[in-house]
Amino acid sequence: MIHANRWYAAATAAEISTQPTEHVICGRPLVLYRAASSGKLVALENRCPHRQAPLSMGTVVGDDIMCIYHGWVMNGAGQCVHVPHQDSVAPSVRVDAYPAVQKWGLVWLWIGDADKVDETLIPDMPWTEDANQSSVFIRFHVGANYQLMADNLLDVSHSDFLHASTFGSHAGRKAETEHVKAELDAWSEDGAVYGLRTLRDVVLSPMAAAWAGTDKPVTRTHKTCWTPPNNINIELIMENDENKVTIHHDHLMTPENETSCHYFLIWTRDFSVHSGYPTDEDVRREQSTVIGTEDISMVEAQQRNKIQFGDPADIPGAADKIVVAVHKRIAELQNEDQGLSAT
Amino acid sequence: MIHANRWYAAATAAEISTQPTEHVICGRPLVLYRAASSGKLVALENRCPHRQAPLSMGTVVGDDIMCIYHGWVMNGAGQCVHVPHQDSVAPSVRVDAYPAVQKWGLVWLWIGDADKVDETLIPDMPWTEDANQSSVFIRFHVGANYQLMADNLLDVSHSDFLHASTFGSHAGRKAETEHVKAELDAWSEDGAVYGLRTLRDVVLSPMAAAWAGTDKPVTRTHKTCWTPPNNINIELIMENDENKVTIHHDHLMTPENETSCHYFLIWTRDFSVHSGYPTDEDVRREQSTVIGTEDISMVEAQQRNKIQFGDPADIPGAADKIVVAVHKRIAELQNEDQGLSAT
Amino acid sequence: MIHANRWYAAATAAEISTQPTEHVICGRPLVLYRAASSGKLVALENRCPHRQAPLSMGTVVGDDIMCIYHGWVMNGAGQCVHVPHQDSVAPSVRVDAYPAVQKWGLVWLWIGDADKVDETLIPDMPWTEDANQSSVFIRFHVGANYQLMADNLLDVSHSDFLHASTFGSHAGRKAETEHVKAELDAWSEDGAVYGLRTLRDVVLSPMAAAWAGTDKPVTRTHKTCWTPPNNINIELIMENDENKVTIHHDHLMTPENETSCHYFLIWTRDFSVHSGYPTDEDVRREQSTVIGTEDISMVEAQQRNKIQFGDPADIPGAADKIVVAVHKRIAELQNEDQGLSAT
Repeated sequence: MIHANRWYAAATAAEISTQPTEHVICGRPLVLYRAASSGKLVALENRCPHRQAPLSMGTVVGDDIMCIYHGWVMNGAGQCVHVPHQDSVAPSVRVDAYPAVQKWGLVWLWIGDADKVDETLIPDMPWTEDANQSSVFIRFHVGANYQLMADNLLDVSHSDFLHASTFGSHAGRKAETEHVKAELDAWSEDGAVYGLRTLRDVVLSPMAAAWAGTDKPVTRTHKTCWTPPNNINIELIMENDENKVTIHHDHLMTPENETSCHYFLIWTRDFSVHSGYPTDEDVRREQSTVIGTEDISMVEAQQRNKIQFGDPADIPGAADKIVVAVHKRIAELQNEDQGLSAT
Repeated sequence: MIHANRWYAAATAAEISTQPTEHVICGRPLVLYRAASSGKLVALENRCPHRQAPLSMGTVVGDDIMCIYHGWVMNGAGQCVHVPHQDSVAPSVRVDAYPAVQKWGLVWLWIGDADKVDETLIPDMPWTEDANQSSVFIRFHVGANYQLMADNLLDVSHSDFLHASTFGSHAGRKAETEHVKAELDAWSEDGAVYGLRTLRDVVLSPMAAAWAGTDKPVTRTHKTCWTPPNNINIELIMENDENKVTIHHDHLMTPENETSCHYFLIWTRDFSVHSGYPTDEDVRREQSTVIGTEDISMVEAQQRNKIQFGDPADIPGAADKIVVAVHKRIAELQNEDQGLSAT
Repeated sequence: MIHANRWYAAATAAEISTQPTEHVICGRPLVLYRAASSGKLVALENRCPHRQAPLSMGTVVGDDIMCIYHGWVMNGAGQCVHVPHQDSVAPSVRVDAYPAVQKWGLVWLWIGDADKVDETLIPDMPWTEDANQSSVFIRFHVGANYQLMADNLLDVSHSDFLHASTFGSHAGRKAETEHVKAELDAWSEDGAVYGLRTLRDVVLSPMAAAWAGTDKPVTRTHKTCWTPPNNINIELIMENDENKVTIHHDHLMTPENETSCHYFLIWTRDFSVHSGYPTDEDVRREQSTVIGTEDISMVEAQQRNKIQFGDPADIPGAADKIVVAVHKRIAELQNEDQGLSAT
């Protein structure tokens, strides 16, 4: 299930060039390229109308793309403008084009009605352009429905278990540190869902302690903002009387099909920006490794289990307030736009 | 199709420890572990009731298992006994547990009604605990329905063709040794099926001759006993005026799903127990190789063919009396318990 | 969709020996072998009627084949003629046999009614036996419906795009060599479809220029003949006032199933037959490489796209006259024989 008339992150800006590439976005096989003359982004159905050859095997010529099979040429609007050895081409010879824009270092595609395109619906991420902070972009491919990945990120309570030895702590563990209590609130406002979760007196794992620049327990606050279709920003603050650091996590999930998705992470820190630990390369390596081996392994295992067990209903706990609020909001949205199929 | 209210071999005893492992038994994805405090065997649905994370990714804590994702804890009966940052857990938060016992070196699971559990239904294999014999345990994974594997084992007439150069002989070959005639009988008694097959004057292949300790032709007798769900014991006697040896083959087949199964072989000999050929290691190597390359390759090829050809009806020959009697008994049982789905 | 009562190329003659091999032809899993005594070709369903073991795992004995599993023996007509330890076999114990003949270096199977077998329906390829020409046989496996491969070959207009840097030229390219015009005609006659395409003043790529033995532009003529089920002969003539060369391409496409096929290419040249470039080995290497990486990659991509996009209708161009005529003829044939399923 996807949402109509929304922007979906399809690629990082650095990935799209005059060399066409294939992407499956919301179940739609697409070719993306950057026009050689104008530099504009182009997103078309990845098929030539002649015989369904993938346009991504072709070549960008000026602002157009030439199919490698028989040399038919499509322009950036999907219109066929040349057939070899033929004087003219019927206007009906065309493929679908998708509105595409570049913003905050990502390429966004509009899935929905062309006359409703609205760039203000792209979420704000000004910190990615702030000289006093540093952003690292990472792309993941996940063999699970994009909502499973989103649920993982909306629910920061997993940090102290799945990431106990990396990002997290031992807070809440049975008969061990049950005394650390979480304060958690979630609310909806203007179509967005917000969450606020605070744990006090948290003993951090070594990696998190190094980020926070302190060996003493911290107060750890997660401020979550969710907007449709599945854009999540989490501002993580770790502080005590020695130090205070802030990390912005922008998580953009885009369906590939029903059981796989693209996940773009922008990890922005306000500490060690110009020197010290972590460097951008440290962040890239740590986040790729931990998310790849811990989170993605988990959501893919959940996806397999949901299929194997016939999709049993989840049982939310008290820590799931934000997930529950987002699922409620998604149900409302699907009611409104009656849902688009992802495949 | 599986049988309700029966024991299925799920693992060798050596495989199950306090490190949880995942198994698909009769179409059910399960986690198995040995409780750290009590040492009891535990078999649960391999999912946390919270969000379907596999419990097999978790950790055994005392007699319980903790989900790695959010730290929810299930006890050996499948009941959730702890949710982090939460004061209590509803009694309805639980997963299914399966009765599990250890006997004759294997772990057995009861598939059926908990109030009908009956340990006397586990087949007897006292020779596995006899100091004058030696048993070797081998586990195979087979890409075919468990009945195809069982049919292979019930029908010892394949020995002289599929295993002509290893376990078998050339008896019965067209225009070659057709004079060697088989005596074969099969009968049902108390819900079990029995078979008796004798070939006289059999010239053995080198491997079988080495077991029998004779180069002269032998009388080769197979005594088969089948009990539900698909437990097969075959007592193989090879004898002449020089020597007599006996091998017990216990074959336990357990469905994984409709087109794959687990196959446990216990191979018990009353010769060369303390010295001479074969050693336990010889047996393990020979049986793994021959069954893996000859029998399992064959039943997997049959499975593919049954799918490709739309499952044509088999045509039994005179040598298939035992297979036919077992299939008849299985049809009766399925009538009685109306069959459980394996997937 | 396949055509009834037609010959399909199943193998090169060199592939079939007394060692049985498995082949899926028109969706039918078959065993092929050459009878040890008579040398005749035998094609049977690849299953023993006893328990569906693949006969291709067995052994040819005289003109018969013995199943490796239990020693049942089938003759070349598919009739079971021996069951071990059994005095007789019912006449109903048999598998289907398919008429098979060897001609023009290929093995042909008749799919249809046995009483309509007609060897004159095998296409003529006398050049393969001409001492003044040299033929190279190449076999490809293609992950696409056989019609997609046939469409590729019927439409030689792709040469100047897909093969621009190997077999082809740049003729017809937008804003580059649009002045080179194609003359194209297509017609049906006696159930066959013929095509004639001529391009004048074509600047050849280096490989094609070396074949043609000239660096100057040539007139390039393709004479196409299609006969059912999907036999294609293309006579390619390249000539100018310096030289003239002719290449016969025989393309035989046989369905494996709905989305894969066998493709046999016979490439016959009337130049450099005894010395010079290309040698047979050059031809084999060049054709394998170019067809494998350019044509087959393309038709497999088309197949995936047709599935992904829900099989959109193609839009023929002016260059597709021959393809259009063949598709029309195929529709007529399918109407006549009501189509046989390929799987």
